[in-house]
Amino acid sequence: MNTVTYRYEQLERFCRDVFIHLGFSSEEAGQITDVLLLADLYGITSHGMHRLIRYRNSIRRGSVKIDAKPEVVFETPVSAVIDGHDGIGQLVGVFATKMAIEKARRTGIAFVTVRNSTHYGIAGYYTKMACDEGLIGISSTNTEALMVHTHSRQPLLGTNPIAVAAPAEPYPFWFDAATTVVPRGKLEVYNKLDKPLKEDWAVDENGSVCTDASHVLNCIINEVHLGGILPVGGSTEEMGSHKGYGYAMIAEMMTAITSGGLTSNHHRERQQGQGSGTCHAFIVIDPAIFGDAQAMKGRLSALLEELRSAQRADENVPIYTHGEKEQICYAERMRNGIPLNISTVAEMKSIAEELGMDVTAYLGEVDVSQARLFSYEKKRE
Amino acid sequence: MNTVTYRYEQLERFCRDVFIHLGFSSEEAGQITDVLLLADLYGITSHGMHRLIRYRNSIRRGSVKIDAKPEVVFETPVSAVIDGHDGIGQLVGVFATKMAIEKARRTGIAFVTVRNSTHYGIAGYYTKMACDEGLIGISSTNTEALMVHTHSRQPLLGTNPIAVAAPAEPYPFWFDAATTVVPRGKLEVYNKLDKPLKEDWAVDENGSVCTDASHVLNCIINEVHLGGILPVGGSTEEMGSHKGYGYAMIAEMMTAITSGGLTSNHHRERQQGQGSGTCHAFIVIDPAIFGDAQAMKGRLSALLEELRSAQRADENVPIYTHGEKEQICYAERMRNGIPLNISTVAEMKSIAEELGMDVTAYLGEVDVSQARLFSYEKKRE
Repeated sequence: MNTVTYRYEQLERFCRDVFIHLGFSSEEAGQITDVLLLADLYGITSHGMHRLIRYRNSIRRGSVKIDAKPEVVFETPVSAVIDGHDGIGQLVGVFATKMAIEKARRTGIAFVTVRNSTHYGIAGYYTKMACDEGLIGISSTNTEALMVHTHSRQPLLGTNPIAVAAPAEPYPFWFDAATTVVPRGKLEVYNKLDKPLKEDWAVDENGSVCTDASHVLNCIINEVHLGGILPVGGSTEEMGSHKGYGYAMIAEMMTAITSGGLTSNHHRERQQGQGSGTCHAFIVIDPAIFGDAQAMKGRLSALLEELRSAQRADENVPIYTHGEKEQICYAERMRNGIPLNISTVAEMKSIAEELGMDVTAYLGEVDVSQARLFSYEKKRE
Repeated sequence: MNTVTYRYEQLERFCRDVFIHLGFSSEEAGQITDVLLLADLYGITSHGMHRLIRYRNSIRRGSVKIDAKPEVVFETPVSAVIDGHDGIGQLVGVFATKMAIEKARRTGIAFVTVRNSTHYGIAGYYTKMACDEGLIGISSTNTEALMVHTHSRQPLLGTNPIAVAAPAEPYPFWFDAATTVVPRGKLEVYNKLDKPLKEDWAVDENGSVCTDASHVLNCIINEVHLGGILPVGGSTEEMGSHKGYGYAMIAEMMTAITSGGLTSNHHRERQQGQGSGTCHAFIVIDPAIFGDAQAMKGRLSALLEELRSAQRADENVPIYTHGEKEQICYAERMRNGIPLNISTVAEMKSIAEELGMDVTAYLGEVDVSQARLFSYEKKRE
């Protein structure tokens, strides 16, 4: 694979400075960078530097508002509804999570829901914030409509990830997954690698299964609004398509329905310069509401260990628990650096050049002539 | 298909009287029957009369205690931990749900968790109880270990259904699904019908995909404890196996980890005469914690209508929202009766005969010579 490897510190400085150049304060830029680079450190390539160009695009066309401040529009001791006012999702998400943590510390459970936000990165960043404080974290977001629900050919639901984290030893349970069989970012990565998609990942404009990444991505950004990604469980009820569709609906209810924001199928109606209409949910539970929090952590740790040491189907293929691969990847990448696809590096170069940054000082001398570029811009009225 | 159709009232009287003969009060028997027959009315064949023989077996061997009363062992304004003392799951479940509803009315959200219960029927019965009162209901249960998690050949997690219901017009969002690609009951039904399983539903003792229902069911009840049902997403991470495995873990955390009960992989250690160790969760949310509950119901109803009227992949295959098929089936079966597989009727006859009930008075004259009987008894030490 055609990659360039950078040290974490190098990418941290680059990414923070990009966001400062884009208009954020140093503290804000650091916070946004922390969310994006956790994805790359965890090996979630689709949500790290790979996505930088789309954040830049959103900011440039004014759909992400630099100066927006989240506003609490409704509140009870166990809940809040926040209007993100089209601010960047990472800042809205951290604000909302801190509020959910504070409330959960007082009442035991808190459910904070957000409307009018924008893409917030990996859902698991926010659950990790809660988990790092010994609490159970749950987060979800809706997205632009990309999921073609069971027996439909029209994408109306988002990829709608659901993330859950809970304290355990030697590392937490940390689950973060799109309710589509794969996230959009995976199609983009396959497109960059020029690899065919797997069967039952996506459908074309006729609702037929399609393995051409670029065709499906074009379906997604075209005006026809037909074709897209299948739910986990694929295209048939026999394999549980209606289950993935159901989990996506649960995400939609946790986010847009509770907050009064836009459901995924209405994100497209937003005009140039308006925010994406993204909605999020942040639920925090203090394990002490079930008694001894330490004992609970012990029980979860024991179960995770039993799962990891189960008899393998194939002796050579290890069994993981959720969050384990990410922990391993994190340690390895902090030690040896973060490999980035050459096309991602090309995008980063073009962003830095446009912002008048000294590209070579940040990224070194790299040859990006092998990059496969793709326009992520959606045509908008 | 070889079926006999009964009116709801006829089955209601039969089932209630079976539980009265088994030792429950008339009120308790009515409550248990209400849970079981909602499954048959909703078309969830695996959880209605089909399962009666297994409840009878559990009661007969003393693993379900007739006289058990649920006990609250820990409590906060937003939570409770209940010990079911091996009582029948339906009675424990209704007790816990009523408590969660009461708490949610006061605080906005309540999370009631249960240990030492037994099989409680469809999870969606309890979410419907909350939903019928205008609240959001969530329920989950662990089960005996049947799910072979990703890359394992040893079943350590349960089929662990997660159910969510929320008020909407013309009918609620009502989602209830095992986190395995199919529930155990589906294998039993396929076995009764002598049909091969679908690829990527189950694996044998070697961890290889297996389509022989009876072989997989024998793996499940045998002492080897290898082989079982795959998570939603099947056997490979590419198709999202780790997602179904993750949802099953979320169910395990909501139920056993919070309540301090047995995780699914330890249910088997229970001795003859001990309960199954089943754990449940009941979460109730008052939509008023997000503002106007009526507006929220309107938003959800609108989204569901948009999903139903989406462009179809195949003009002849309708698109459903969750709970819609069940509503249609309910109305149809209340009008035209409930069809039962002849093998299920044979099991019902044998139970009634054993209890000294007048079988013909309850079930009429039926020929069950075509029945395919299967022993559901697990060998226990």
